[in-house]
Amino acid sequence: VVRKSNVRSRLPGARARRYDSRRDGILRAAAPIFRERGFADAGMREIAEAAELSPANLYHYFKGKDEILYYCQDRALDRMLAGIAVARGTTDARERLRAVLTTHVLTMLDEVEGATAHLQVESLAPRLRAQIVAKRDRYERAVRRLVGEVARDASLDADAALITRAMLGALNWTVTWYRPAGPKSPRQIADALAAYLLRGLAHC
Amino acid sequence: VVRKSNVRSRLPGARARRYDSRRDGILRAAAPIFRERGFADAGMREIAEAAELSPANLYHYFKGKDEILYYCQDRALDRMLAGIAVARGTTDARERLRAVLTTHVLTMLDEVEGATAHLQVESLAPRLRAQIVAKRDRYERAVRRLVGEVARDASLDADAALITRAMLGALNWTVTWYRPAGPKSPRQIADALAAYLLRGLAHC
Repeated sequence: VVRKSNVRSRLPGARARRYDSRRDGILRAAAPIFRERGFADAGMREIAEAAELSPANLYHYFKGKDEILYYCQDRALDRMLAGIAVARGTTDARERLRAVLTTHVLTMLDEVEGATAHLQVESLAPRLRAQIVAKRDRYERAVRRLVGEVARDASLDADAALITRAMLGALNWTVTWYRPAGPKSPRQIADALAAYLLRGLAHC
Repeated sequence: VVRKSNVRSRLPGARARRYDSRRDGILRAAAPIFRERGFADAGMREIAEAAELSPANLYHYFKGKDEILYYCQDRALDRMLAGIAVARGTTDARERLRAVLTTHVLTMLDEVEGATAHLQVESLAPRLRAQIVAKRDRYERAVRRLVGEVARDASLDADAALITRAMLGALNWTVTWYRPAGPKSPRQIADALAAYLLRGLAHC
């Protein structure tokens, strides 16, 4: 996160940690506002109030609401890319892909990152948007390689790019219907979705 | 469509057909504006210009841009529900579901309906939104029944509601990545997606 370092990198350890935790508190306050009001109608003043900060103090942490949105989306992608990295420790490609799909769902249904992940990157200024799109493309390419590997192992003649997009669509769509009060936990949803999406990569 | 009848039902045959075709022309003009600018930033004046109408004339056909959006989404749902009805002629549940999934993709990638189908219904006034949500729920229930039937035929112990949402997510997501200049036609995308999504409903 380029802009973050401007302020944060000059802070000593304890203050840097306090800075990070304050930013997390702001994200937690902003997420339901974005979710309920939509990004266009959310105001910095409203976010400041929800985070119990003065507007001036909020601007110390984020220069605008698009920077908050950027930071949420960037963090979600970092978490999903970390899922790819962790999965590398598993030998079986199918189990590796299962771990990646599961992490994706858990990130989407997280109360902070997930709340903004469905918002179109078009809401971001061009420079921030380009960074998110580049990271998202990197993630999609990694998933596509895994899908191709699983399909080859299963001797399945499949279009890995198309199947990857089908998978990502199914996973991303969860934010539109998931309700915390629903019958299934995020973990149960993640496991069931991964099982279904992986069955489509088997030769019957 | 309730509002439509107000004007249209009083017109004789030839004029009613002209009215319909003028409305279709307006949708065709509005769709790329919604797609490129987003719904919030699209203006009635801009839509009127693109449709080569005066603003006053445009208001004769649609009372506002949310009525245009409503009409597009309503038409998309009618087309998908018609897909369910047509599929009833096929005996095999799996082939029936294949036909429904295929029609869904073709509707999403249509230059008019698909352009607005990804827009959140939150953009609509409550009364119009309720009508779209009710019709969407009716469609989703019909798909879910079909998914349940296919799963039973395959002796697959599956959560039909969750799998239905995974399928709809994969299908709806196409509007975010489809480009008319891409390597695959809408028909090829529809067939490949349906094949993948149906494989996940087989017992391996």
